[in-house]
Amino acid sequence: MRYELFYWPEIQGRGEYVRLALEEAGASYVDVARRGNGEDRMIALLQSKRETFPPFAPPFLKAGRLMIAQTANILQYLGPRHGLAPKNEQGALWVHQLQLTIADFVEEVHDTHHPIGSALYYEDQRKEAKRYSREFWKRRPQKYLGYFERVLERSGGPWLLGRRISYADLSLFQVVEGLRYAFPRANRRLEKQIPGVVAVHDAVSARPRIAAYLGSPRRIPFNEYGIFRHYRELDA
Amino acid sequence: MRYELFYWPEIQGRGEYVRLALEEAGASYVDVARRGNGEDRMIALLQSKRETFPPFAPPFLKAGRLMIAQTANILQYLGPRHGLAPKNEQGALWVHQLQLTIADFVEEVHDTHHPIGSALYYEDQRKEAKRYSREFWKRRPQKYLGYFERVLERSGGPWLLGRRISYADLSLFQVVEGLRYAFPRANRRLEKQIPGVVAVHDAVSARPRIAAYLGSPRRIPFNEYGIFRHYRELDA
Repeated sequence: MRYELFYWPEIQGRGEYVRLALEEAGASYVDVARRGNGEDRMIALLQSKRETFPPFAPPFLKAGRLMIAQTANILQYLGPRHGLAPKNEQGALWVHQLQLTIADFVEEVHDTHHPIGSALYYEDQRKEAKRYSREFWKRRPQKYLGYFERVLERSGGPWLLGRRISYADLSLFQVVEGLRYAFPRANRRLEKQIPGVVAVHDAVSARPRIAAYLGSPRRIPFNEYGIFRHYRELDA
Repeated sequence: MRYELFYWPEIQGRGEYVRLALEEAGASYVDVARRGNGEDRMIALLQSKRETFPPFAPPFLKAGRLMIAQTANILQYLGPRHGLAPKNEQGALWVHQLQLTIADFVEEVHDTHHPIGSALYYEDQRKEAKRYSREFWKRRPQKYLGYFERVLERSGGPWLLGRRISYADLSLFQVVEGLRYAFPRANRRLEKQIPGVVAVHDAVSARPRIAAYLGSPRRIPFNEYGIFRHYRELDA
């Protein structure tokens, strides 16, 4: 089966967590909106009044007859099918919980440049973004990534779940990549406190399929339209 | 089996979505932190270095030997066991997607009074909260609840999934209740545009077990420590 992934074609954004899982799985998929009139098709689907399971927003995945939206939900579907999540109940709930916690953190990262509203330009909320980012860097990355550090201590590594990689490891890699891009200065100090998380990042980037993906045009570069944005004035 | 729910004892917060599901299910449960030294036990569990599946934050649920954290994850576990979610794959993914979308909206509601940082008092981010709330009410409730209105049109009602109630309906009830409490003025205009969502709210509050719960001391009143807070100056 060939999956159809629907996500904005110019950014990594929330779609990237799904792309990483599909790539690591070696799954057959089309990144629909990046081809021909695919973006129009995605928007038509979002506005359709006939779709039985209408997504609220991208990303969403068509898997045969299934329609699945919300990043963590998509990963929860893909995980056990591609060796990226345990099949037992506690294991599946646990990795999903880790993913939802990563999603919460990513939301907070997004707000570093958009604390007032996503309909406004960054330039129109710069002052608030500076204040938010200052507060954010006092404790939030430490709290979230410190938590994943503890999870790694408990699991014994090298992965969050122990000896087997999961989609949450791929997502954690993306978070580390994103922070490095967006906040190179603040992040340097942070990484000293989270050696286990950095080791997961490094181990993910060394996976042959992930390495091939990162070096391919399928990987969209970071930019100032996505979630992880580099604005020097926010990086204290 | 008697569930153990762990959540902050003074607020509805994110725990309330779980409480509503447990109550509608008529499930046997203990709201641990609201009893004796239960809150100490919750905090000890959060800080424990021995817990195999440590939660990042409340709410979390102990179900026999299972440990489950993250609100939507807990609901996804409870749903099919108590007739509050479909057991088929597409149905389970769909109701979980709706729940995750509600969670995204609740996060944005939270930020109306805490746009800069959750470690700061409201009073220390009042100016930003006013600006955020103004932007928020231009479009966000309309966008999210308009989406659920469309879902109800597609399902044919009376519930989000059609003829059978789900945990997402209970959560939607809570969102309507919360907006009524926090933003009585802005919300009055909003509700005129979402009759289907209001009908779900009313139908949920008329369920015998929910009605009994809402009238009991188990239901914590809304207050200015929770997610839905009433600050008159934010209600334009």
